[in-house]
Amino acid sequence: MELRKHYAHALRALSMDAINKSKSGHPGAPMGMANMAEALWRNHFKHNPRNPNWVNRDRFVLSNGHASMLLYSLLHLSGYDLSMDDIKNFRQLHSKTPGHPEIDRTPGVDMGTGPLGQGLATAVGMALAEKMLANRFNRINHPIMDHRTWVFLGDGCLMEGISQEAISLAGTWKLNKLTAFYDDNKISIDGAVGGWFTENVAARFEASGWHVVANVDGHDPKDIDDAIEEALAVDDKPCLIICHTTIGYGSPTKAGLASCHGSPLNSEEIKATNDALGWDYGSFEIPQDVYEAWNAHEKGQNINDSWQNAFNIYKAEFPELAEEFNRRMQGDLTSEFTSAADKLIADLLQKQEHIATRVSGKKVLDAIAPTLPELIGGSADLTGSVGTFHATSSSLTPNDFSGNYIHYGVREFGMSTVMNGLALCGFIPYGGTFMVFSDYAKNAIRLAALSKLRSIWVLTHDSIGVGEDGPTHQPVEQISALRLTPNVDVWRPCDTIESAIAWKSSIENKNGPSCLAMSRQNLTPQAHSKEQISEIEKGAYILSDCEGTASIIIIATGSEVELATKAADILTAEGKKVRVVSMPCADVFDRQDDAYKEKVLPKNVRARLAIEAASADFWYKYVGIDGAIIGMTSFGESAPGNVLYEYFGFTVENIIKQSKKLLGE
Amino acid sequence: MELRKHYAHALRALSMDAINKSKSGHPGAPMGMANMAEALWRNHFKHNPRNPNWVNRDRFVLSNGHASMLLYSLLHLSGYDLSMDDIKNFRQLHSKTPGHPEIDRTPGVDMGTGPLGQGLATAVGMALAEKMLANRFNRINHPIMDHRTWVFLGDGCLMEGISQEAISLAGTWKLNKLTAFYDDNKISIDGAVGGWFTENVAARFEASGWHVVANVDGHDPKDIDDAIEEALAVDDKPCLIICHTTIGYGSPTKAGLASCHGSPLNSEEIKATNDALGWDYGSFEIPQDVYEAWNAHEKGQNINDSWQNAFNIYKAEFPELAEEFNRRMQGDLTSEFTSAADKLIADLLQKQEHIATRVSGKKVLDAIAPTLPELIGGSADLTGSVGTFHATSSSLTPNDFSGNYIHYGVREFGMSTVMNGLALCGFIPYGGTFMVFSDYAKNAIRLAALSKLRSIWVLTHDSIGVGEDGPTHQPVEQISALRLTPNVDVWRPCDTIESAIAWKSSIENKNGPSCLAMSRQNLTPQAHSKEQISEIEKGAYILSDCEGTASIIIIATGSEVELATKAADILTAEGKKVRVVSMPCADVFDRQDDAYKEKVLPKNVRARLAIEAASADFWYKYVGIDGAIIGMTSFGESAPGNVLYEYFGFTVENIIKQSKKLLGE
Repeated sequence: MELRKHYAHALRALSMDAINKSKSGHPGAPMGMANMAEALWRNHFKHNPRNPNWVNRDRFVLSNGHASMLLYSLLHLSGYDLSMDDIKNFRQLHSKTPGHPEIDRTPGVDMGTGPLGQGLATAVGMALAEKMLANRFNRINHPIMDHRTWVFLGDGCLMEGISQEAISLAGTWKLNKLTAFYDDNKISIDGAVGGWFTENVAARFEASGWHVVANVDGHDPKDIDDAIEEALAVDDKPCLIICHTTIGYGSPTKAGLASCHGSPLNSEEIKATNDALGWDYGSFEIPQDVYEAWNAHEKGQNINDSWQNAFNIYKAEFPELAEEFNRRMQGDLTSEFTSAADKLIADLLQKQEHIATRVSGKKVLDAIAPTLPELIGGSADLTGSVGTFHATSSSLTPNDFSGNYIHYGVREFGMSTVMNGLALCGFIPYGGTFMVFSDYAKNAIRLAALSKLRSIWVLTHDSIGVGEDGPTHQPVEQISALRLTPNVDVWRPCDTIESAIAWKSSIENKNGPSCLAMSRQNLTPQAHSKEQISEIEKGAYILSDCEGTASIIIIATGSEVELATKAADILTAEGKKVRVVSMPCADVFDRQDDAYKEKVLPKNVRARLAIEAASADFWYKYVGIDGAIIGMTSFGESAPGNVLYEYFGFTVENIIKQSKKLLGE
Repeated sequence: MELRKHYAHALRALSMDAINKSKSGHPGAPMGMANMAEALWRNHFKHNPRNPNWVNRDRFVLSNGHASMLLYSLLHLSGYDLSMDDIKNFRQLHSKTPGHPEIDRTPGVDMGTGPLGQGLATAVGMALAEKMLANRFNRINHPIMDHRTWVFLGDGCLMEGISQEAISLAGTWKLNKLTAFYDDNKISIDGAVGGWFTENVAARFEASGWHVVANVDGHDPKDIDDAIEEALAVDDKPCLIICHTTIGYGSPTKAGLASCHGSPLNSEEIKATNDALGWDYGSFEIPQDVYEAWNAHEKGQNINDSWQNAFNIYKAEFPELAEEFNRRMQGDLTSEFTSAADKLIADLLQKQEHIATRVSGKKVLDAIAPTLPELIGGSADLTGSVGTFHATSSSLTPNDFSGNYIHYGVREFGMSTVMNGLALCGFIPYGGTFMVFSDYAKNAIRLAALSKLRSIWVLTHDSIGVGEDGPTHQPVEQISALRLTPNVDVWRPCDTIESAIAWKSSIENKNGPSCLAMSRQNLTPQAHSKEQISEIEKGAYILSDCEGTASIIIIATGSEVELATKAADILTAEGKKVRVVSMPCADVFDRQDDAYKEKVLPKNVRARLAIEAASADFWYKYVGIDGAIIGMTSFGESAPGNVLYEYFGFTVENIIKQSKKLLGE
């Protein structure tokens, strides 16, 4: 018992030292959660430090990501490839120990955290992924997918509304292999939480279908172990373990106070803390016996090896399943996918359907989904409107994880975090809602971008074309706000062909999320040559052109492309030299080489008109000071969509008028 | 009893007819909630249709705003200035009956709703406002502020996480005059909610400190009345009344089905419904006796008159209080405010402090807050970091509503909705968090903009200058995403003087919200002439200039202005003709006349360099295709802020380099 507290204190010592050295960080939480971490990681957590990407490892999510030094200390002591020098480089440029945990940066970090509540909410997706993979791949006596997801979280995570969306879904899905530890220290940054956080957390979780182990002494290893054993025995509910802890535990003058939340303890206070807890070593000094007690190499390699042996037997018995499992874990697409996509494009070219892109999107899914079993759909309670339920969709239910479609309820943020959790575990999730409600989910889209996750958002009703529902339901700023977010590809296709390319590109982009802006209203198909089709995936291309140098370039996206081509036809008939550029994805276009960009938008053509029924300002990027934009500079109105297009100037007539103005007529 | 059901059915009939005529809308919810509405509005709701802005009226918030026709029917029948022609114009351009309720558009609409969950969450702010106003203005035997806030909501509102943030705060504050009716019809758009919404709602609300009246028959007027009486008797908790209802109640083929949620019933189905419920009138026909049963003119005028008499007596006894009350209800500022702001600016000019703008902001509040008791501060658990707790701040607590500062806990969205509720009731709320977490609150900022509410967001840690906390905490796209949102003024001041003007302008802007982007790091004060100071409030101005026409214009905001002026000094010393434009608020600058815009940014000067440590793309608006931008095109990194400024090129050297490049050197 005393030894275990000693081992726990090693986490505190490293955390205090690293935070003090970097003069920045959050010591209170690592010090408060050290005993919880010791109990979980030394006695229960199944992992292999030498193989951090082992697919059947337990997952650990630090939802209160500011406690990052707890995680780095755990990884270092357990024997991950994270040296004492890395620890000493805490919060330095390009170190393996950034301020908040980031995946792909530190071996052993299963999820990037920091924005509160999202760790827990993403872990729900990870635990769901385990259930779905087990359902798909396990065979009798072959539980190749069988692991748990563990979460540490603080009161901040529980105050954020996303936590309720997440726990409600986890309870509905009965995710019994999900266990969360609540670091209940009664302190947040503003002080004692009694003034702003009075809810009965245990009762709230129970109301949402969780098993709760309450009143655990978060500094008593035995009590924590018992709670974990209780959680392990629950087979029909996720579990919350409420640990009463002291923030900054051990610090003679700071323990229990908000002041140790986000500021380093100084060297004197560190020494006093170490003295109080009987830790008699220098800074960044870990004695060999402590390293040995923590080292998880042998145990980890053993369980990993057993699993590998079991998997080899499974592979011998079910070679195709095993191959499919490996393909998915590597994130590779099937060869059938490419041929299905190519065939679809050929079909769509022939059909030339006059349909909304939200409907085109469904047709794309109808064609490609059968080739990609890892594609998991869903919607935040707008399934019929957003076209996400395709011909081979089947609903996942609380009692059947074989479905490939998730009804998330009216929870855009919760949907998005679960999508990110699925993406972290080998799925390609897509989820649909109205574009305006991407606002509710925005920080999860951002976290997907930062974490390079292949989550795909289907954002329909993408403009004032929404019509009668009015300005609360009509996006204006959203599409460009998403374009401004780094590493998000935002597609706004103009017809069935562009919809197919948008979907194909989004699925092929392994390194980040995509957003598909789809129309509510029907759109006229554009004529596409073979060359043009190959250029759609460059993000922008010349859709129609004149002889020689254009006098004016009209740039449009999505539903406004047909207005642009119609106006261009009239202008051309009047003898103007007009080029129309369709720009379904500005993000991808920006990544093309200069020659291609110059080909599409020659620098010397300055009469440029951009048209998009959304926030105008973004388009100065392509039309500059000399150009003009037909866009939105106010909110929309409630009226039929065609009335609004007329009212706000999204008409062929207005394009002609503005074009002539640019041409000096 | 039967008559009351008849009166209730008038709501259904009008809703069905208007939705059918406009070929768009949501009949299911109005039909399901008609009995609840009849009971509340005819028997309990205190209002005066002839004076919809009566300050002590009860408030009604339709959180499931898609049921708008229920509200319009209520207003029409009760005798508000909303004619049958208005009803017939449902969802038509510029009608008084838009798709979702909007304030300032329809007399009697207390809050614009549509984005689910926010109605309930904003109502929490409205109910809090009543408590705060009562605390401030009521005197013994003079309860001039004494009204209730009523909310209708659906399962969608409860699935959204914002509902948990809101109910947790309402429970903590014991808002007993807040009563919510849950339209528990077990149906959402995707179908029966059992697959995605299984939580025990009553238990969840009880866990959050609410009194719950469960199992009410939502189609039985007596049962609903009894529930309301029970709620009225609870004096220490907000109350939830759970009404079991049938969506599309009365429709022979659609009742109980998701298909009547968002699609009109056709004429045949309307007739069948009317027949089933014994409603024997033509479309849009309301018999006189039904009008008379609903008409609230007399009752409303009586209670309004009684209140006015009581207020007149109060006014005689407490003339200064009454005057102050009237001032605040009109939204006028005090004269002391203007003089305090002017004095502050003079003081700041003398002091020339080298401090972070988050600290300047606090100094501004120290000076002006004593002159504006309606200014209510708060933070989402970052009080110390964001500088929102000023010298005369005092914390509001669950047992004392005299405070002017609210600890919202880690609830950015909940904070923002409560702010909007306060703004709707005569307060000027401001609330602080880190700018990156504006993502969590975005749709509430949007709703404030759409509803023209004077809410002020203090968004500190406004760039990669955040430093060590890393990319999850460093905003990139947020500031420009807010700029793209219509009717939001986004200020990013460069020093103490600009901070003061930013605050002053935000407070003086009665017609929309403002966001103040404030630095974590210290900033060098700029030299400001009197003329320049008067120009700051134009959003952009010439901070330093050359003789004659500039060869290059450097545009910068906030923390980057000092880099711009330093670089300009060096370039000038080298003989270049350089102008520096500080642009603290692009939104306000865009509203200036052409002459001023041309003065600041002459069209013929095309060598333009914009510098902002945030998303670059927005700045093409001002530098065009020929200019250059030093901005962010990726996420940030975890490292000390000064290291990041160097790494990402926000340095005097790089500005000089890019300037020379633009000048063709």
